Formats: sequence, structure tokens, C-alpha cells
Amino acid sequence: MIKLTETITAISTAMSDSGIGIVRMSGPEAFEIADRIYKGKKQLSSQESHTVHYGWIKDGEDTIDEVLVILMRGPHSYTGEDTVEINCHGGVFVVRKILETVLKNGARAAEPGEFTKRAFLNGRMDLSRAEAVIDVIHSKNEFALKNSVSQLRGSIQRKIQAMRDEILYHTAYIESALDDPEHISLDGYAESLVEKTEKLLKELKKLINTADNGRKIQEGIRTVIVGKPNAGKSSLLNVLVGEDRAIVTDIEGTTRDILEEHIQLNGVSLNIVDTAGIRQTEDVVEKIGVDRARNQAEEADLIIFVVDASRNLDENDFEIMRMIEDKNVIVLLNKSDLKTMVTPKMVKEHLDKPMIEISAKEEEGIYELEQTVKEMFFQGGLTFNDEVYITNVRQKEALLQAFTSLSQVKESIESGMPEDFYTIDLMDAYEALGNITGETIGEDLVNEIFSKFCMGK
Amino acid sequence: MIKLTETITAISTAMSDSGIGIVRMSGPEAFEIADRIYKGKKQLSSQESHTVHYGWIKDGEDTIDEVLVILMRGPHSYTGEDTVEINCHGGVFVVRKILETVLKNGARAAEPGEFTKRAFLNGRMDLSRAEAVIDVIHSKNEFALKNSVSQLRGSIQRKIQAMRDEILYHTAYIESALDDPEHISLDGYAESLVEKTEKLLKELKKLINTADNGRKIQEGIRTVIVGKPNAGKSSLLNVLVGEDRAIVTDIEGTTRDILEEHIQLNGVSLNIVDTAGIRQTEDVVEKIGVDRARNQAEEADLIIFVVDASRNLDENDFEIMRMIEDKNVIVLLNKSDLKTMVTPKMVKEHLDKPMIEISAKEEEGIYELEQTVKEMFFQGGLTFNDEVYITNVRQKEALLQAFTSLSQVKESIESGMPEDFYTIDLMDAYEALGNITGETIGEDLVNEIFSKFCMGK
Repeated sequence: MIKLTETITAISTAMSDSGIGIVRMSGPEAFEIADRIYKGKKQLSSQESHTVHYGWIKDGEDTIDEVLVILMRGPHSYTGEDTVEINCHGGVFVVRKILETVLKNGARAAEPGEFTKRAFLNGRMDLSRAEAVIDVIHSKNEFALKNSVSQLRGSIQRKIQAMRDEILYHTAYIESALDDPEHISLDGYAESLVEKTEKLLKELKKLINTADNGRKIQEGIRTVIVGKPNAGKSSLLNVLVGEDRAIVTDIEGTTRDILEEHIQLNGVSLNIVDTAGIRQTEDVVEKIGVDRARNQAEEADLIIFVVDASRNLDENDFEIMRMIEDKNVIVLLNKSDLKTMVTPKMVKEHLDKPMIEISAKEEEGIYELEQTVKEMFFQGGLTFNDEVYITNVRQKEALLQAFTSLSQVKESIESGMPEDFYTIDLMDAYEALGNITGETIGEDLVNEIFSKFCMGK
Repeated sequence: MIKLTETITAISTAMSDSGIGIVRMSGPEAFEIADRIYKGKKQLSSQESHTVHYGWIKDGEDTIDEVLVILMRGPHSYTGEDTVEINCHGGVFVVRKILETVLKNGARAAEPGEFTKRAFLNGRMDLSRAEAVIDVIHSKNEFALKNSVSQLRGSIQRKIQAMRDEILYHTAYIESALDDPEHISLDGYAESLVEKTEKLLKELKKLINTADNGRKIQEGIRTVIVGKPNAGKSSLLNVLVGEDRAIVTDIEGTTRDILEEHIQLNGVSLNIVDTAGIRQTEDVVEKIGVDRARNQAEEADLIIFVVDASRNLDENDFEIMRMIEDKNVIVLLNKSDLKTMVTPKMVKEHLDKPMIEISAKEEEGIYELEQTVKEMFFQGGLTFNDEVYITNVRQKEALLQAFTSLSQVKESIESGMPEDFYTIDLMDAYEALGNITGETIGEDLVNEIFSKFCMGK
């Protein structure tokens, strides 16, 4: 264990004038420093843990601010160390002044994420929980928050721990048998190990597969709206965004730039892109717009194809259908408020995708669109009671590494290699999984992970 | 007393992703609501005041975040009411989500400043202290903070209270005497009242006079740098600001725009303005710059006149000296690193102001400049042990009103008016002073004062 002899401090709240600001201290001298600068009815260091004290912060004779001081004694604190939180007035100057006073009295400025790093180093949380802390802070929608909180509660840690325990058991068994073949037999063990390994591989595969959904939850589903000119794409964007984001006219080719918006549909984030109407055109600027729309569609998680149901399908529609036939597509038959020329059946003959009749103008059919998006991406609803979504690229890499090593174990068994070959790969998988919880991770990587945190956490 | 039956809530920290965010609740149902949404080892409402509890906030089955909850029972809280502070992760989305959960469970969204307004209405602080709260938050320099904190500690309240007590005593005495002339005599009382009134007027005058310094402390001293072209004004600005703010060249007339900077000199703020060099010029843009420099000088609290000591004084210098002779001026004999042609004595013959030899280029003489600024404005140093600076326009108005009423008392006595005339003006002064502490203030004005607060305070 790394020795944590210094007392660290940082401002833990955001830096603009507000009601309350917090300066946090953690480390062996936290209480001593607090005693030096706090003036109240009682001496702080002789007070009980988890109590709150009203008083004033002083720098020598100068009174800095009126405060509430919160005491938490290690190990029952976030970091596992003695911790003092000074709640002062939230002005930028006064919060800085309190920080300065704490620094002057013996604390050192904390690096970004250093409080959480100490929580990890002191065994208060594993690495997957520590990483969830920053995900909670950066959550931008309902499901991202739920998923991060579930990880914070240890959902990943528990899954990984269970797999590691199992791998370790088998490794130990094989090694014991190799050491003591007279008493421990490996007869038939290979077959049962194949079975166990297949089960583990299946579990790993499932976790790895969540990473794509995990990314969509965390960052949003990359959604592109396509359709021929004047089909109502920009009207749809405006309805979804809830404001007049895109200029809407009756003139074909109104939208040329790519407009991008971040919206929430029932807790799922869509990063939604409106594009130029796709058609054969001679207008140079419009032509560039059409090319860009094609590229955007190429990279999208989801394509919303808007068909103008009030006009007959034409060559432009058919070209778009050919372009998107291998993609995740929802077809919207727009302008259901007008006399419709296009029926769902007519589209289905060319493109077999989920289809909804809507009227962007009358804002009808939007709820069905939301439901279809959710069904399409999260099989009818996101549940977070059991499901774990991997949202962290580093964790996904480690899972892939463990998957490769366990595949190797299976292969070795099937090609009749000697038992000590398995144990090497089993231990590799064990180590790879240990990277996720942080049990087998190097100091450099730990430092790198926490350096991405925000100050004061 | 206004009835405060609703439980209010708001986010009290600044709204950008950070380590910790706080959602605060105050009111009769604060504990009940906390019980409904908090899941931890114990029921919050049965815990002692001023304790901290680790747990989770839940919205029904959904877990929102891991939190520390702080309990403070009224009247021993900021507002004087039962108060709960939820310290959660400081992400914008998650903090909002906690606020939503609190609102959903029975609290109402607080208006800006409503917590402090309740503190005032519940008698936890007088109005001068309440107003100091927002000044502490908005303090931009050392002395502004010290002054606001001194007001927060009741320096104004105590002074005002003492004056009001005295006024009330005299009013009561006169009225008793008028009611019961047989037992209480007013013989010679008028003379002693004149004396007392003069003392009070002197005190009021002194307080009113601090308002100008108060403004300078709070907002900074409006400082204008003038001098003929190429005297080194922009170099000086750069030295004071500590960066290359103004473009410096050897070419006369480099600066044309008014450059403005906010700097700290030993805790005093200067709002410093660099101007075009003042000279007779035919260049149209430069001419406008010179005119602007004159206007700026006209409105300044302080003028720093930079003289190029390496060149003989000329007509441009003399014109500037005539322009600023009635102002607060510090003369800087710049370029002391070069061979000097101008001595302090030579300038003194035309302009008798504090003078310092400096080298902006070598950054010499800057400390002396700082000291001179402080001496000039704050008589050798700001002290906050006894001195009270009025920084609030509303308070200054009330003091002026009280001053007028007491002057009227003095006048009435001197022109031999009957005693009951004095009491009316005495009571007017009493009421005016009561506006400062909030004892005689109307609801509308209270609402207006607190509406200027930030959210969550």
C-alpha cells in the first residue's frame, strides 16, 4: 500500500458565485489544520465523527468567513482518512481565500481526482466504482445516470469478482493436482473445464456486447434524419427539439448545413442530425450538402427516413432506400394530416423497416417514434436491476483481453495440450479482469485514470 | 411574523459539473421529505441535530445518487427552521435530478435569496447582516471581503442599534415629561439634547462619509493613466496587470482605444484605464482617443500621470498638468533606468502632488506606487477592527434620511420650538435607521432586497 502521509485539499464545488462553496481536506493532519483555522464554541478535533459545527474561519487575526464544518473520521469517510469539509459562502474569491488559508496551514493542493484515488488506494472502493463516480458526475440523461449509479453500487465489481473467483479456483485446483497427482486426479477435469470456460466466455461476450449500448446510453444514439427535399425533416427536428432550430420553408433545398442537436427521448439521448434533402441537384452548395448527408447516414446508429406521404414515391426516395437498406432505420410517413398518396404497404415493398405514420406539423406520432427507438435499441426498455452496461473503454479492453485468454484455454484443452498450459492462460484472464476492479493494476495506470477526474473529487 | 408553512428547496452550489453539489431544504416538512427519499442505516428524522448521514437518495424504486445528508434542527440552523442539506455528486444532471425528487416529495422551489429571507424573517439575522451575505459572495478582493464579513458579524447592526437606543431614550423621556410634567422636568433638557444630537449627527456623518470608500473597496478605485505619447503608460499597465495587455512600441500614438483592466494592489482593486497619449494631433482616430482620455480623467477617482523623465517637460506635459490640478493625482517619473532630464523639483513647480520615480521597464517603484494609492485613499491603511464602511446604497440613503431628521431636531431646538416637535423628527430618524436593520421595513422592500440574491442562498 502506498503511504498517504500528506493532507490534501481542494475546492469541491463549481467555481462561480453561488450560495455555498466547499473546501475539502483529507489526510492525517486534517483535524489539526481545522483546529488552527476554525473558531467556534468547541475544539473541532475533540468532536465526534459525522458532526457539523458552526463557526468562523480565521487566518491569524483576520476573519475570512462564516462556515459550517463537517467532520468525518477515517476510516468512515469517502477517502477512508480523516476528512474535514468546510461549507462557506459560495463566492469565487471567498472560497479561494479559504483554500489559501488551508494551504497556508499545512495542507497540499490535491490533484484532480486525488480524493477518489485515495478512496481506491485505501480500499474504500474498487476501481470500477471509482470510475463510476466520474460517470455519475458527467451523466447527461436518465439512463446514463442510472447505469453509472448501478456501477457505483458495485454491479460491475460483483460480476467481475465472481468470474475471477471461479478462474482462481480452477487454476488452484490444477496446480494442486500437478503438485500432488497421487491424491488429486485430473481425470475428466479437462471436459468439465471446457464447459466452465464456455460459460465464462458467454458471460464475457454478453458484457462486451453491452458496451455498444453502454456508449449509446452514455453519449447518446447517433441519429440522422434523411429524406428527399421538402419531406419535412427540419419540421421533425424542430418538433423533437421543441424549438425552431432549423429554418423551415416550402422551398426544396432549404437545409444545406448539417444541423446537430442533443435531445432526450424518454431518458434516451439522441444526437440528432438534420441533413440536406437527398436528390440529384446541380446547385453546388446543395450538392455538397447531399454528399455530407450520405456520409452522415453511413456512420449513424439510427436513421430516421422521412417520406412525404402526400406525394408519390419517386426516384429520390428509391435511391435513399437503396442507400440505407442495411442500416437501423425507422421510416416516418409524414404529412399524415394531408391527403396521403403513399401507404405503408407501398414503402414496405422496397424497404422492410419499422414504420410510423406521423404529422410533424400537428406533432402526431412522436410518442410512437420514441417507443420504437427504445424498442430498437434496448429491446423494449432499459432495466437496471440486473443488467450491467459497460460504458468504459478501458474496461471493455480488459474484458476483450480476458475473452482472448479464456478462448486460448478452451483451444488448448481441445487440442490436447498439457494442463500447465491452461493455467498460464487462466491466470492471464484473471489478471485482465483484475484490471477492471484495480486489483492487478500498475501505479502509472492508476495515476492516468484519476487524472481525468475533476478537481476536488 | 409572517407564517412560513411551506418547505422550500433549491440547488445551493454553482451549476457546472464538479465534485460536490448541494440541494438544500428548509421548512417544517424538511425532515419528513428527507425520510421519504433517503435510504440509509437509520431514519433521518429521529437523528440528532448537526449530524451527517451516509446513504442513497431514491425516487421510489430508482436510486438517484450516493449522498451525505446534513441535518440541522430549527432554531439552530441558518434559516432558523428544520434544514436538510443533501451533498451529492456535483454533476449538473444528477443535482437537478435530486432537486426534482425533493420537489416531487412535497417541497416547493425556493425563490432567489429565500433561505436568507427566512433567516431574516425568523429573526436569525438583521437586514444589514442579510445584505452582507450577498456582499461576501460577490466580494472580488481582500478588503471587500473583510468589510462584508465585518458587516456579517454585525458591525453595522451594532452601531445602528446603539444610535436607535439613544434616540428612543430621548423620545421616551420627552414624552414622559410631557405626560407627567409634575414629576419629570424638561428644564435645561433642550441644551443637553442639542449636544447629544450633535454627537449623533457627527457619527452619522462619519458613516455616510465611509460610503465613498466603501464603494471603492467593493467596486474598485476608478484609475486613469494619463501622459503624453510614449511616456510609458502602456508599459505601466502591462507591469500592473502582469501580462502584455497593451501593445507597446516606440511609436508615439500606439494606443488609441481605451483599455480597461481590473487589478489588485495589495488587496485594493483598481479599475485601471490606459488612454491615448495626450498631445496636439492631426490624426483623426488619435484625436478621438485624446478626447476620450480627457473625459476619462474627468470622471476618475485617481489619475496616474506618467512623465517621461528622459525627455524635457514640454507643452503637452504642461497642458495635462493644468487639466488634472484639482484631481487625486500620483505623478510617476518614468524611465528612471535612463539618463533623467526631469527632476521631481521641476514637476513640483507646476503640479504639487505625490511623486514617485519608477521604471516600468525594470519594474522598479511599483511597491511605492501601491503604498501611495493606499495612503491616499485609506489614510495609511484599511483597518477593519473598528471601522465600518457602508457599501450599500440603500443603507446610505437611510443614513442620509436619519441625518436630515436629526438636523431638523437640532434646528427646532435652536429656534425654540415646543418639545413635541422634536419627538416627531426623533422618531423619523429612529424609523430611518430601522430600515437598515430591517426593524421598520415593509414587505415589498424586503422582497425586493432578497430578489437580488443568488439562487439557493
